[in-house]
Amino acid sequence: MTSSVIRSAVSVFFEYDTPRIAHIRSKKVGLINRLIQLAIIGYIIGFVIVYRKGYQDTDKVQSSVTTKLKGIVFSNYSDIPSIGVRTWDVADYVVPPQESNAFFVMTNVVPTPAQTQKTCPEDPTIDGIQCDSDAYCESLKGTSSMKGNGPITGKCVDSDFPKFNGTKVCQIYGWCPVENDDLLESLKKPVLQNASNFTVFIKNNIEFPKFGVSRRNIFGTYKNDSELSSCRWNRDHPKDKFCPIFVLDDIARDAGVNFNDLNFQGGVMQIVITWNCNLDHSINDCVPSYSFRRLDKGDFKISKGFNFRYANQFGVVQPDGSFKLYRDLYKAYGVRFLVTVQGTAGKFSIVPLLLNVASGLALLSVATIICDIVVLYFLKARHFYREKKYLDIKGPDAFEVLKEESEHPDNDNTPNRKSTSTESGSASIANQVR
Amino acid sequence: MTSSVIRSAVSVFFEYDTPRIAHIRSKKVGLINRLIQLAIIGYIIGFVIVYRKGYQDTDKVQSSVTTKLKGIVFSNYSDIPSIGVRTWDVADYVVPPQESNAFFVMTNVVPTPAQTQKTCPEDPTIDGIQCDSDAYCESLKGTSSMKGNGPITGKCVDSDFPKFNGTKVCQIYGWCPVENDDLLESLKKPVLQNASNFTVFIKNNIEFPKFGVSRRNIFGTYKNDSELSSCRWNRDHPKDKFCPIFVLDDIARDAGVNFNDLNFQGGVMQIVITWNCNLDHSINDCVPSYSFRRLDKGDFKISKGFNFRYANQFGVVQPDGSFKLYRDLYKAYGVRFLVTVQGTAGKFSIVPLLLNVASGLALLSVATIICDIVVLYFLKARHFYREKKYLDIKGPDAFEVLKEESEHPDNDNTPNRKSTSTESGSASIANQVR
Amino acid sequence: MTSSVIRSAVSVFFEYDTPRIAHIRSKKVGLINRLIQLAIIGYIIGFVIVYRKGYQDTDKVQSSVTTKLKGIVFSNYSDIPSIGVRTWDVADYVVPPQESNAFFVMTNVVPTPAQTQKTCPEDPTIDGIQCDSDAYCESLKGTSSMKGNGPITGKCVDSDFPKFNGTKVCQIYGWCPVENDDLLESLKKPVLQNASNFTVFIKNNIEFPKFGVSRRNIFGTYKNDSELSSCRWNRDHPKDKFCPIFVLDDIARDAGVNFNDLNFQGGVMQIVITWNCNLDHSINDCVPSYSFRRLDKGDFKISKGFNFRYANQFGVVQPDGSFKLYRDLYKAYGVRFLVTVQGTAGKFSIVPLLLNVASGLALLSVATIICDIVVLYFLKARHFYREKKYLDIKGPDAFEVLKEESEHPDNDNTPNRKSTSTESGSASIANQVR
Repeated sequence: MTSSVIRSAVSVFFEYDTPRIAHIRSKKVGLINRLIQLAIIGYIIGFVIVYRKGYQDTDKVQSSVTTKLKGIVFSNYSDIPSIGVRTWDVADYVVPPQESNAFFVMTNVVPTPAQTQKTCPEDPTIDGIQCDSDAYCESLKGTSSMKGNGPITGKCVDSDFPKFNGTKVCQIYGWCPVENDDLLESLKKPVLQNASNFTVFIKNNIEFPKFGVSRRNIFGTYKNDSELSSCRWNRDHPKDKFCPIFVLDDIARDAGVNFNDLNFQGGVMQIVITWNCNLDHSINDCVPSYSFRRLDKGDFKISKGFNFRYANQFGVVQPDGSFKLYRDLYKAYGVRFLVTVQGTAGKFSIVPLLLNVASGLALLSVATIICDIVVLYFLKARHFYREKKYLDIKGPDAFEVLKEESEHPDNDNTPNRKSTSTESGSASIANQVR
Repeated sequence: MTSSVIRSAVSVFFEYDTPRIAHIRSKKVGLINRLIQLAIIGYIIGFVIVYRKGYQDTDKVQSSVTTKLKGIVFSNYSDIPSIGVRTWDVADYVVPPQESNAFFVMTNVVPTPAQTQKTCPEDPTIDGIQCDSDAYCESLKGTSSMKGNGPITGKCVDSDFPKFNGTKVCQIYGWCPVENDDLLESLKKPVLQNASNFTVFIKNNIEFPKFGVSRRNIFGTYKNDSELSSCRWNRDHPKDKFCPIFVLDDIARDAGVNFNDLNFQGGVMQIVITWNCNLDHSINDCVPSYSFRRLDKGDFKISKGFNFRYANQFGVVQPDGSFKLYRDLYKAYGVRFLVTVQGTAGKFSIVPLLLNVASGLALLSVATIICDIVVLYFLKARHFYREKKYLDIKGPDAFEVLKEESEHPDNDNTPNRKSTSTESGSASIANQVR
Repeated sequence: MTSSVIRSAVSVFFEYDTPRIAHIRSKKVGLINRLIQLAIIGYIIGFVIVYRKGYQDTDKVQSSVTTKLKGIVFSNYSDIPSIGVRTWDVADYVVPPQESNAFFVMTNVVPTPAQTQKTCPEDPTIDGIQCDSDAYCESLKGTSSMKGNGPITGKCVDSDFPKFNGTKVCQIYGWCPVENDDLLESLKKPVLQNASNFTVFIKNNIEFPKFGVSRRNIFGTYKNDSELSSCRWNRDHPKDKFCPIFVLDDIARDAGVNFNDLNFQGGVMQIVITWNCNLDHSINDCVPSYSFRRLDKGDFKISKGFNFRYANQFGVVQPDGSFKLYRDLYKAYGVRFLVTVQGTAGKFSIVPLLLNVASGLALLSVATIICDIVVLYFLKARHFYREKKYLDIKGPDAFEVLKEESEHPDNDNTPNRKSTSTESGSASIANQVR
């Protein structure tokens, strides 16, 4: 008995189940079937394998970006002492001097030089700061508005803003004199208007770690540093479209933006470097493409542009030898550039090819489903095919129904079908098991 | 002959294979089958299509963040000359003045003003720096400990730290006088304690490039800059929950943190802006939600908080007209805020809908598998069904086994089944091929 | 009639379709079938479930990184006044003082101290700036080359560069005196050569939000701040491989780079912190691993290294009490370190387990497909099996072909097969429907 159990257990290893198939020879259905199969195979080969490169393993780009600006601007504001006659260079207009994947170019500025901690009249444009007498300011003593520059001392003094000549404001203690934004209105055009001529050299090293491929966006077409530094990026030039040195104005123009719309109040731009590489081809075809866009787009009435404040602090020796803290405050308007590096490399690999072919083949069953619907519901000979495909089994607890009537509303060949059904396609458990 | 080959090749195009199906009519199994199918269809429609929005194509958010802090603090430390009586504003406490997706707010500080390159006594808290005589320091001459401030000159001098009055330490050459952290202990509370009242204006422009949708986190509910600047974010207020101006204390409270736990030794907070948009609805419903959390959480005994050192350097004119380099050193404690923008937009698209329906329908075969198990192993009439479903074929190399005994341990209707099997369900190749 | 329609509609709920299966007993095919099934099940369990941890739900790491450098360098350049005899500390060589996921260490520097806005001779290495007479410069008046330092005033003056003694160049107006890069050549070795001994403390807090797990890269093995601060990372030491303090030289060496190749002209390095955690194990096994590599690798002849310019501005009081702006300009060469945190945590979850088992089981149908190919095309008894599996149905619009000849090129048992086919496997609609 145990030996028979073992034998039967072993026999399980020598069995194999395969579905039984009805093989239908019919021009109409066969054609539909083959056309659908052709469409699916065409989709797999044409779209999945060839167009979407389903035969390749892929890897995302890893990157490092460093940027270097060049260019100088001369501003001649001898009538505005806080700006004066001066040259602005890269150490003046790039703040902070270096960042990860970003750089800021100052295009306009409101300087407030030589501030120090003392008392002075508050900015008269602040709500509730204008006064008639010390009594009003005394009631606010020690407080400070959110937009204010320091705590109120309690005195009511003359404003030092030229536009508010004769107005009296409360005095504060803080960095004095306070910043006067009126300067911006008097300027009409940005202080560093020619910032549009600045160039930025974007050095971008990338890597596809999975494939061990490293590239950078400077190619052998430039023989030395001097040749490289004299090129300028140009989308339409076969060689210069790979030049890593960009004129800011070209960046704006390519993004569909006028740089003059950005330089007075500032803005945010994005530089996108895309490395899509087919590593089955020559590594020399693995080159970047550049695109640009403005990020703070939209015609906003409120909260427009981009600016921030920074200061250079320094000590000044007093007669008694001690140091007194001074600072030059700058409200900097300008364009913030974000550099985004994206891209994917593909290389032939057998695994994704097999996976795509396999999941594509699984789609072939869709052809069978559609043909089944045609064969079983739309063909004139549907009852004949239905009988061949289906074996009708009535279980011991079958739901009894006037089957013939509901199943054959066209009633033309009911007797014929019925007899056939009984003979070859239908079986009742009542006859055989019970 | 060739024409027959061609005809037979052509005939392949007019064929079609469909699996043969046993159609079982049984209340029990039919019900199980339909219930499972219903559950699967309910899962597909309810969960995959409706709840998980399987009918939508999706795109990740792309974003740009700029931040602007506002607020001033007045500190009255007339007894501590290095701090003194002064007002701190945004150009003082935001270091560096602007960053990508981050900002730092200084809340506490140890200033060391007017350092210059000269000789001075080293920090007496450094291991092995205290001395009795020049001989000891002479042996260390030119070396510097990792925590030290400069190379040892070889002289043993009096410490200039008040707490170490009378202690002798080796002299160094470097930025002198050296920083004295004792100041921190004497402070008891942070220098910029009211930093909790500062506000930050987070301007966030986003884009879903695939759908060409741009949004920002400032909406038309604010008519002008002045109305906007007077709002404050409030999670529970219907309008203010979209206000882009946040009080630092509110951020901390919403993250479940007391700002006073952060401002003495510093910390790191995260501001998460989530844009989950259903672009099938009105674009006006595409709004951000804000959440906050502390990143350096945990009750750490060692290496607590966040601080770094920075300096402002400046030259001081000497009597001979030359410049001597001085600097003000700051050890800045504060809160570093990281701004993370995340989110996904969805929009109706036929492709993901079809893919989800198709992969959902594939699940329907699970119903058949479960019903097969019930029918073939658990029903009383399982042998009847098994015969109908399976055609038993004995190949020429079949493994011989006492089949009947092992297959029918219940043995009740073996003779009946066996004869049936021979008649309709089983076939031997021996009879037909050999 | 309606009741019969209802009954028949209800009957649909008590039906169930299952494919009819040919159950083949054959040692050869059965063995092939079972071996393929075994390979697939082995692949699912061994590779998908166990090796690839298919039973786990996963979450990406979220992280915050802060860095702190330590170390001082003493430079003795008494012959180069712009550098002089001085100590460099962290506030000198880390620019900007803090960044997100990055830090810069200055290793070499060209200082240009005490520049102010005035006239001076331009850099003689600029193309076309050398002159014989004022006439040449007058023709360039107001212009400025891209590499220049300011607009040309029109005067031709003696160069102040020692190497160009006797050469005449056009005068400019700008930050004067202009930077002289010759200094770099005269240095031979980097100013901060011992930067390789600096240490960086990388504090990394991570979180797996889905699992509510927070960790940091400082563990309980260090009892206090002093013990922590004295450790140094070492890949091969069981305890020190988790020390978060790295010597820059060790980082370079581990990346296969000589720090001395980086410190003269600068470079870009990446520090990768990987947190791959199996949260089914103890949380104490969730530890980071560190790896390092150079990002700007490749032996580049052009555009080598990494440098940028920054300046410290300050005012100097003039005899009339006004301030004149001065600055110290630095061309900083150094190593930029990018810190990347990556990793995934896994934790047991029933959903991915079920999904992996289900999609694995779907692969089992591949065994049937392969066995079908063997059975139907390669076995000697293929015609016998083909008849059993296929029911040949000739539709009313069948494509007529000399079927027997094309289908049985081996022709040995045609008569036998043909009669069998007619009897049990083949049916013509002509006989039965028409």
